[in-house]
Amino acid sequence: MGNTFGHLFRVTTWGESHGGAIGAVVDGCPPLLALSEADIQPELDRRAPGQSHLVTQRKESDTVRLLSGVFEGQTLGTPISMLIPNQDQRSGDYSEIAEKYRPSHADYTYDAKYGTRDPRGGGRTSARETAGRVAAGAIAKKLLRERYGVEIVAWVARVGAIGVECDPETVALADVERTPIRCPDPDAAARMIALVEATRKAGNSIGGVIGCAARGCPPGWGEPVFDRLEADLAKGMLSLPATKGFEIGSGFGGTELTGTEHNDEFYLDGDRVRTRTNRSGGVQGGISNGESIHFRVAFKPTATIMHEQRTVSRSHEETTLKGRGRHDPCVLPRAVPVVEAMAALVLVDHALRQEALMGGRWAAVGQRSVR
Amino acid sequence: MGNTFGHLFRVTTWGESHGGAIGAVVDGCPPLLALSEADIQPELDRRAPGQSHLVTQRKESDTVRLLSGVFEGQTLGTPISMLIPNQDQRSGDYSEIAEKYRPSHADYTYDAKYGTRDPRGGGRTSARETAGRVAAGAIAKKLLRERYGVEIVAWVARVGAIGVECDPETVALADVERTPIRCPDPDAAARMIALVEATRKAGNSIGGVIGCAARGCPPGWGEPVFDRLEADLAKGMLSLPATKGFEIGSGFGGTELTGTEHNDEFYLDGDRVRTRTNRSGGVQGGISNGESIHFRVAFKPTATIMHEQRTVSRSHEETTLKGRGRHDPCVLPRAVPVVEAMAALVLVDHALRQEALMGGRWAAVGQRSVR
Amino acid sequence: MGNTFGHLFRVTTWGESHGGAIGAVVDGCPPLLALSEADIQPELDRRAPGQSHLVTQRKESDTVRLLSGVFEGQTLGTPISMLIPNQDQRSGDYSEIAEKYRPSHADYTYDAKYGTRDPRGGGRTSARETAGRVAAGAIAKKLLRERYGVEIVAWVARVGAIGVECDPETVALADVERTPIRCPDPDAAARMIALVEATRKAGNSIGGVIGCAARGCPPGWGEPVFDRLEADLAKGMLSLPATKGFEIGSGFGGTELTGTEHNDEFYLDGDRVRTRTNRSGGVQGGISNGESIHFRVAFKPTATIMHEQRTVSRSHEETTLKGRGRHDPCVLPRAVPVVEAMAALVLVDHALRQEALMGGRWAAVGQRSVR
Amino acid sequence: MGNTFGHLFRVTTWGESHGGAIGAVVDGCPPLLALSEADIQPELDRRAPGQSHLVTQRKESDTVRLLSGVFEGQTLGTPISMLIPNQDQRSGDYSEIAEKYRPSHADYTYDAKYGTRDPRGGGRTSARETAGRVAAGAIAKKLLRERYGVEIVAWVARVGAIGVECDPETVALADVERTPIRCPDPDAAARMIALVEATRKAGNSIGGVIGCAARGCPPGWGEPVFDRLEADLAKGMLSLPATKGFEIGSGFGGTELTGTEHNDEFYLDGDRVRTRTNRSGGVQGGISNGESIHFRVAFKPTATIMHEQRTVSRSHEETTLKGRGRHDPCVLPRAVPVVEAMAALVLVDHALRQEALMGGRWAAVGQRSVR
Repeated sequence: MGNTFGHLFRVTTWGESHGGAIGAVVDGCPPLLALSEADIQPELDRRAPGQSHLVTQRKESDTVRLLSGVFEGQTLGTPISMLIPNQDQRSGDYSEIAEKYRPSHADYTYDAKYGTRDPRGGGRTSARETAGRVAAGAIAKKLLRERYGVEIVAWVARVGAIGVECDPETVALADVERTPIRCPDPDAAARMIALVEATRKAGNSIGGVIGCAARGCPPGWGEPVFDRLEADLAKGMLSLPATKGFEIGSGFGGTELTGTEHNDEFYLDGDRVRTRTNRSGGVQGGISNGESIHFRVAFKPTATIMHEQRTVSRSHEETTLKGRGRHDPCVLPRAVPVVEAMAALVLVDHALRQEALMGGRWAAVGQRSVR
Repeated sequence: MGNTFGHLFRVTTWGESHGGAIGAVVDGCPPLLALSEADIQPELDRRAPGQSHLVTQRKESDTVRLLSGVFEGQTLGTPISMLIPNQDQRSGDYSEIAEKYRPSHADYTYDAKYGTRDPRGGGRTSARETAGRVAAGAIAKKLLRERYGVEIVAWVARVGAIGVECDPETVALADVERTPIRCPDPDAAARMIALVEATRKAGNSIGGVIGCAARGCPPGWGEPVFDRLEADLAKGMLSLPATKGFEIGSGFGGTELTGTEHNDEFYLDGDRVRTRTNRSGGVQGGISNGESIHFRVAFKPTATIMHEQRTVSRSHEETTLKGRGRHDPCVLPRAVPVVEAMAALVLVDHALRQEALMGGRWAAVGQRSVR
Repeated sequence: MGNTFGHLFRVTTWGESHGGAIGAVVDGCPPLLALSEADIQPELDRRAPGQSHLVTQRKESDTVRLLSGVFEGQTLGTPISMLIPNQDQRSGDYSEIAEKYRPSHADYTYDAKYGTRDPRGGGRTSARETAGRVAAGAIAKKLLRERYGVEIVAWVARVGAIGVECDPETVALADVERTPIRCPDPDAAARMIALVEATRKAGNSIGGVIGCAARGCPPGWGEPVFDRLEADLAKGMLSLPATKGFEIGSGFGGTELTGTEHNDEFYLDGDRVRTRTNRSGGVQGGISNGESIHFRVAFKPTATIMHEQRTVSRSHEETTLKGRGRHDPCVLPRAVPVVEAMAALVLVDHALRQEALMGGRWAAVGQRSVR
Repeated sequence: MGNTFGHLFRVTTWGESHGGAIGAVVDGCPPLLALSEADIQPELDRRAPGQSHLVTQRKESDTVRLLSGVFEGQTLGTPISMLIPNQDQRSGDYSEIAEKYRPSHADYTYDAKYGTRDPRGGGRTSARETAGRVAAGAIAKKLLRERYGVEIVAWVARVGAIGVECDPETVALADVERTPIRCPDPDAAARMIALVEATRKAGNSIGGVIGCAARGCPPGWGEPVFDRLEADLAKGMLSLPATKGFEIGSGFGGTELTGTEHNDEFYLDGDRVRTRTNRSGGVQGGISNGESIHFRVAFKPTATIMHEQRTVSRSHEETTLKGRGRHDPCVLPRAVPVVEAMAALVLVDHALRQEALMGGRWAAVGQRSVR
């Protein structure tokens, strides 16, 4: 259970890191969207290992195959199955982590829950699972862009203590992609890169924060009371490996403000009702208000470090363990496309829900009543 | 849509603030749990208006009636319907807010989504809706306590800039309930109370942070990959009115740490695998690890303030609006039982999911394989 | 679990026959539909006991109260809560059926599943639960009629061995309602009534078949592969008390035909693609084809009879039991509005799903490609 | 949407008949079940084309690959992905059926719903999709057999007018598999085979009925009120291609009986509460009662016939069409394992739901109260 996300645009991911393959099935994608592997592969490449010296040098080309749901270059409205073969299966020696619980990994909790786990490369707990989300998110992003004019961009806003304020209204994908750290501010990017390199050399790891903006969403997306747009975004983000927090708009910082400081006043921008400030982060009462949706996600430092740590074995003996192999000292650069993908999955699902509520012939009914 | 929460223990809330009544239906509560209105009413009283001079003086006794699902003092396993009549319906004059969009409220977004809304007391957008969650949460809390020994306690951790560090292992409900502000630290509580009173006198409002701990959860609750325990907690919390952020364990602060600083080493405590520190917040890989689950929720300042603000009317004219009536200058004290309720709803749902996976006759199978 | 039906238009029913009340909550009804209790009560009256000498003389006025989701006579898009107080609670003496399992009732299976049950009036197993479905179905019917021009009519097609062939294209509600047995054929109706009266005098009961037609559905409703329109109709019908079978279009009879006899040839009716025959029952490949949807539902004889039967007690002793009180000798007349309600709930849910898929701005995309 | 089945044991199928591949993902299968391709392949072989002269001679070996969810021969509790490559892709000439709507097929309705379809081999509407169900069902069957002792067997009960009464208590798989028609009665089987052969020679097709029994289910499976066991069985069966009806226990025939004839009296069989007759079909009030569950499914004649039929083209012109190629004159023999698979999927889902409700530590609570 728990491997499916969404109510109308539904994604199911599957696969262990070093099993036969990993993949995703998207059900609920509307028909007649132009789609090919060329729409998906670039997003996977942004997430792939080995793309820069900042990230793990593990070798996985993460090449996606589109197995269903598309005919003559267009979606059919039927499930879209995407498969990514596993190449780097060096499952050579996993006997140590099969036996010893890696601190702050999910080895122990999987054993406690299931009574078993696949230790090869972390099995299902590997962040490799997020490749399936990125593939599905690429479809969601295209649908949002082409049918609603929505653009989603995420960026590294902080690594360790090195942070930068970016304006969610203007951050450009090109600026994000300019450096391997994916921070759009060149100066901050340089300092972040230096910090990550030093951290890796020290066999250590470091956390940080990713910012994300969705621009161009129409008002009306989001379902009160439980399926508020920000609630589903929070769920999507906290479902990502290594995340420890989520905040939208003014977030934790805004809790120190008073109402007079925090409220977003309305004004008229031609026909559009807009807010002068956007501390709400584009969502009010769980529903998008037409302003940019922006939020931030906290990532802890990677759990795998090249230092000896005390731990416990599967057979309940105290022992020690030292990380080996090729790991990311900082997950953030590779997590940027994953955050975008999850945001897209949440937004497209709510877009379809709103179509169901007020779409088609009912749109006119609604239009009449709201001037 | 969006008014139901949970996969196996499902809650549906309904009702507008000044409509006929509000209520909740719980489906999936196991049978043979002793239950009466006396189990539910005290939790509603903690959330009710008028309980202290710090909160709104609106008069709603919030008296719950148990209409189904219970026979001779025990649950039947059938849906439990709970109804709370609306008393204070002074819908006297809502013509102004029927017409003018209150800044940072959901008036505009409801109109944009539905083409209509009930303006009386905020209708469905009123925080009064959370009474239904508290009623359902009271059942979840009892089930968690009686069948699993789980205890949930939340507290006000910060108001504006006045914060306090509380140890999630030891915060006691009695200490929380000692002051009307629901901060267990007496000194901080006094300063918070003074701040809230000053804020109210100024016709203003103030935000803050609620901390919450769930103690006694067994390892194994939570469903990777999308329905991680922290993902569902994040969703539950961000589905509450006025929330802007969620963090678990080390949260945003932990993102500045390195792996050597952040990792939770394992050790043996008798038969139990435990961690020396708990920066994970009781959850690893989306699954509880047996340590206390602790998280924090950010609440923005109440949107209603007694100051004139610029806004826009339903008929698209720029105008001004000034709050009137009886509102909370700070939602936090009344939000404490609501946070507990949502945490309970998330946890009990995952408890039942784990029963499905490894419960009953299968428990033995699992037991055998994990030493 | 199991008390909610629908994916986008969701109904949750609750309540025991002789508990505090029964009711239903509808989530997902679009806004701006004119709705009041006057739209719902007539449907409940068709289902109510005591409406004729053919049905139980139990006294329940089944008066519905609309508690939420409606403002100034129109739906809000928020949950619609409907409550039906229980009046006839003569729970006087239920000690016998609390102890003895009534043959072909659910007393034993409830005990086996839940370890408990409410014996008063059958508790949750009472067909009284269907009043909630009828109330919800009344809303669905109105939405289907006003927004899609769909009309649903059910009728008693057979009682015992007395059957009649009715043309699903033409059966009129007025003809159905003309007699208390709800068979539109006057002659068959008279013979059915005589059979039911004789059956009641004999302290016995009798089964039968209800036919149902939904006319005016556009092509395109229904979701392959699991949520086929006929699959959801079958589920809806088999979820009704006392049902033992469902068939659509040619049904079981059609299984004796060959392909040349059974296939529905297409022809053009102006712009419309139509079929010359309708053995498909209005559904092909799980999707409506624009022809009338028609199906039949088998109801067993009422389990309660005034004859002594052998049975077993809760404390595992063999014993005998004889029905007493006021029961329906034949459930069919009262089941007619219930079948209509379930059909409406299925259809409206698929109507909304199709809006999500091809509604709103996407309709144009689809239109272009299908000539 | 609509490509997922089940609440706790969830199956998603994907794939077009002549696309890249077809497959299924199972989420929710408990861990530690021994599983390999050898458990699945034999069931696929029973469904495969070309297995006898009675069925289509299309060449698809339907070889399954297990891509995830299994480690060292046991399930992990993570999603099980199964892939079946498409071999026989002779998509040679589909231009005719791309343009002309085949009568009683889903060509027209897919176009009406989606504005597009994959015409090669019927695309998603091909019964080939059921291979994914059979693969998933093989896992469900194994779980039911090994953990609950439940055995499921289906058989051809009628072809055209040639029917046979089989005792659901005793039909043996070996007898079913003895003949290519899958009717356990040798004499009837011979006559059915002759009828199917004659039908094929005539370029025609013929319908029939499949019976199915699930033996060994404990009491307590099934969730009233909407998710009754028979409701989910009905949905599962009517979700199969070519089905037109479902009946359980006494079914349509039982509607002619009176209550005294129909009721199943209880008696004690040692400690077990049992019924002397089983007109209920093993389910009472939506919950299994411990007797054998038996039901029947109506299949229409295959729509593809080698006769010229009148129809309409995609560009809205009247035309004619004559079937060609390799099709089944009678779907029933190959549908037998599919019916078993769907039954297994329904039952295992309810088994898990009941574990959630009364499993684990709660079992004892329930046990105490039911004597």
